[in-house]
Amino acid sequence: MKHFTSVLDIPSLEDWLSEAKALKQHPRKHVHLGEGKTLGLLFFNNSLRTRLSTQKAALNLGMDVMVMNFGKDGWALEFADGTVMNGNNAEHVREAARVVSQYCDILGIRAFAQLQDREFDESEPVLNGFLDHVSIPIVNLESALEHPLQSLADALTLEEHRTKARPKVVLSWTPHPKPLPHAVANSFIKIMQRMPVDLSIVHPEGYDLNKDIVGPTPVLFNQEEALEGADFVYAKSWSSYQHYGQVLTEDPEWMVSLEKLKGAKFMHCLPVRRNVVVADTVLESKQSLVIEQANNRTYAAQLVLKKLLEQ
Amino acid sequence: MKHFTSVLDIPSLEDWLSEAKALKQHPRKHVHLGEGKTLGLLFFNNSLRTRLSTQKAALNLGMDVMVMNFGKDGWALEFADGTVMNGNNAEHVREAARVVSQYCDILGIRAFAQLQDREFDESEPVLNGFLDHVSIPIVNLESALEHPLQSLADALTLEEHRTKARPKVVLSWTPHPKPLPHAVANSFIKIMQRMPVDLSIVHPEGYDLNKDIVGPTPVLFNQEEALEGADFVYAKSWSSYQHYGQVLTEDPEWMVSLEKLKGAKFMHCLPVRRNVVVADTVLESKQSLVIEQANNRTYAAQLVLKKLLEQ
Amino acid sequence: MKHFTSVLDIPSLEDWLSEAKALKQHPRKHVHLGEGKTLGLLFFNNSLRTRLSTQKAALNLGMDVMVMNFGKDGWALEFADGTVMNGNNAEHVREAARVVSQYCDILGIRAFAQLQDREFDESEPVLNGFLDHVSIPIVNLESALEHPLQSLADALTLEEHRTKARPKVVLSWTPHPKPLPHAVANSFIKIMQRMPVDLSIVHPEGYDLNKDIVGPTPVLFNQEEALEGADFVYAKSWSSYQHYGQVLTEDPEWMVSLEKLKGAKFMHCLPVRRNVVVADTVLESKQSLVIEQANNRTYAAQLVLKKLLEQ
Repeated sequence: MKHFTSVLDIPSLEDWLSEAKALKQHPRKHVHLGEGKTLGLLFFNNSLRTRLSTQKAALNLGMDVMVMNFGKDGWALEFADGTVMNGNNAEHVREAARVVSQYCDILGIRAFAQLQDREFDESEPVLNGFLDHVSIPIVNLESALEHPLQSLADALTLEEHRTKARPKVVLSWTPHPKPLPHAVANSFIKIMQRMPVDLSIVHPEGYDLNKDIVGPTPVLFNQEEALEGADFVYAKSWSSYQHYGQVLTEDPEWMVSLEKLKGAKFMHCLPVRRNVVVADTVLESKQSLVIEQANNRTYAAQLVLKKLLEQ
Repeated sequence: MKHFTSVLDIPSLEDWLSEAKALKQHPRKHVHLGEGKTLGLLFFNNSLRTRLSTQKAALNLGMDVMVMNFGKDGWALEFADGTVMNGNNAEHVREAARVVSQYCDILGIRAFAQLQDREFDESEPVLNGFLDHVSIPIVNLESALEHPLQSLADALTLEEHRTKARPKVVLSWTPHPKPLPHAVANSFIKIMQRMPVDLSIVHPEGYDLNKDIVGPTPVLFNQEEALEGADFVYAKSWSSYQHYGQVLTEDPEWMVSLEKLKGAKFMHCLPVRRNVVVADTVLESKQSLVIEQANNRTYAAQLVLKKLLEQ
Repeated sequence: MKHFTSVLDIPSLEDWLSEAKALKQHPRKHVHLGEGKTLGLLFFNNSLRTRLSTQKAALNLGMDVMVMNFGKDGWALEFADGTVMNGNNAEHVREAARVVSQYCDILGIRAFAQLQDREFDESEPVLNGFLDHVSIPIVNLESALEHPLQSLADALTLEEHRTKARPKVVLSWTPHPKPLPHAVANSFIKIMQRMPVDLSIVHPEGYDLNKDIVGPTPVLFNQEEALEGADFVYAKSWSSYQHYGQVLTEDPEWMVSLEKLKGAKFMHCLPVRRNVVVADTVLESKQSLVIEQANNRTYAAQLVLKKLLEQ
């Protein structure tokens, strides 16, 4: 594994989940592994969980961390090749990536989809811009298309709370006032497709995700029907993929409630809008795993950093 | 002491001041106490002294520190319960507090009064929002109503510079072009009421502080009279409490000068507006203790962190 | 050396370059030198290389680092003496400098020229404001007039790549859409004047630099002629010094190309605007030293910090 940019970079998910559980038992066991090594975290977008859990993971491994809000504290970056740079962008990613590679041992990057132009977002301009020119491993802290640290934490959480050999897992679209990216849904689908679970997806018409990612996973349009017999319900809001970046409906009927969940566990990546995405009562119930998912972000990040340090 | 949110959380001020003096003599003596422990600092408002002195205090105890400008770098928080979160706030404090508790061992929070609505400010929405849902100790880095780290540093400074068993201490209102919160004044009054000093307060009409905090402390309206025979003059600007958040006067006659001080020591929490709050000549004189107060911020924070780590 | 604010603070450049090369070979050799010491980095302007390389340098010496974007996260500073501070500035540098001196062992400061008023910029209000009142060593992270860490890294890079006893070095002005400060050019001239090189400067009419800095160094106005036989071409954009802060021309004829360079090595401090300052093909060629210059920023900073720690 040269970089960790996708859940598909995980060679054996089963082995990784075992090792993540072991790390969680003894988080400081490898505190000398990262000594004298520096993790750089470049944020092109806001972050709470990713920012703090990835720092904590690095500290658990004895690494130093340098955090930078790139857009606010650095220079506006140019990503297109061959441009005459006489506009607002002061530095090209070709220089930035090569330069930063010299100050860090591992580089984390967060750069969301902009949801204006699908082709542009799918080219992963920021992540790929750095990937093309760095000489150190990159960790994806959520890019336009994937949020693999989140999905690894989700898989760990599901693994810890499963009571069946093959639980039923439903990814349900939920309403949201703002257009949101597809990264979390994409990575969750990809990682669940590698787990011993029965995965299905439910969303309103017009909210189909990328068919290449969905693949053979069943897609339903009726939430009640989809949630029938579910063991885990993963709620996520996303904007339309076909009508790229648009909010087609905010239908409150799609909000997740205790009644809909019945006995199922509730999962969400956070931040979550209460009483829009999910009812307060769900989040305050024992069925909610959202706080544990966030906790597992530390061990997901720590495992990824450990793997990159060891190679 | 579960949290440190008020000067009233100090069990024995005398013991704490002794211990703070000892820490100041040997700041790195307990450098192994905080090993492997992480302090999270969440700033909802700007900060210079608190930001740097609290970091320094944690480093002196061997802790790791993660600093976050919450409002700028994270998600806008909702604090009200039961809200349908379809507005600007992306995350509820119920999630944020529980999540952050998992990445840190101690959490510092700064969230000023907004001075728009007294009842709202007095509910301490941010501090109490976190207190209600964290599972780790919280340190108040200045909330709507208190600034206890400042007052602990002030008490230490006064203790170091007292030449009498029972010095006369005057808290004097001073002019300021902008409406300022009452937190520093509140905490100073509370801590001085626990010290062997003669405390009095002086301010123009209309600037009375919360009567429940002032209690039996004498209040005067004539600065010259109030400062008569003072050993320590603590200057502080605050907006009106009755006419909540308003600036009723900027009367330059209330500025502190060497003439007014006579031999008294001058104290202020900083930042201070020169030649508005106090004359240049005071700050450049040996009577000014403001730089030492700022120095003592490190040891006040270090003592609080040490107490929380030890329990 | 009390502070490091100018390349002229380097007592023996030859010795320093030798020591910098040694540090580069064994960056973690002195990892105990800075134990328990804290570097404060105050940014009044944006930064990528300086921010990360100076942190990395401090970490290599075992120091703790506290980074603060002063303007955004602290209080607006007043620098003028005697002011009645009833405007926007909340704190005077007299307090800020004294206070910060108590939390740090060394202080780095970045504050660019504002390019509005030459006399104001040449008074170095921020840097000198701090210098006048700190009690700890200051490192200049680029001030209005100098960028000495950059120039020390440049000298190291040139030293590593020279193939002649006395190479020909040309500092060439290049076009830029925005008015840029003179700090990098000033420091580069000053340090090259101390090296065994043949230095010359070339720029369009109206772009003369400060005559006191240029001194006896030859100045040309014809780029082709100036670059004839050059071993190193250092490109830099700057605004007019006579017509202070103005962009007099953006003439693309002054862009550096492979054709112009012939066999010369290309140097630039970065960030660089591709195809405005220099052609893509130069930056992607082996003649470009810009990435190595950025790499050497770490060792330049590390050497300066080491010298300040050792004294």
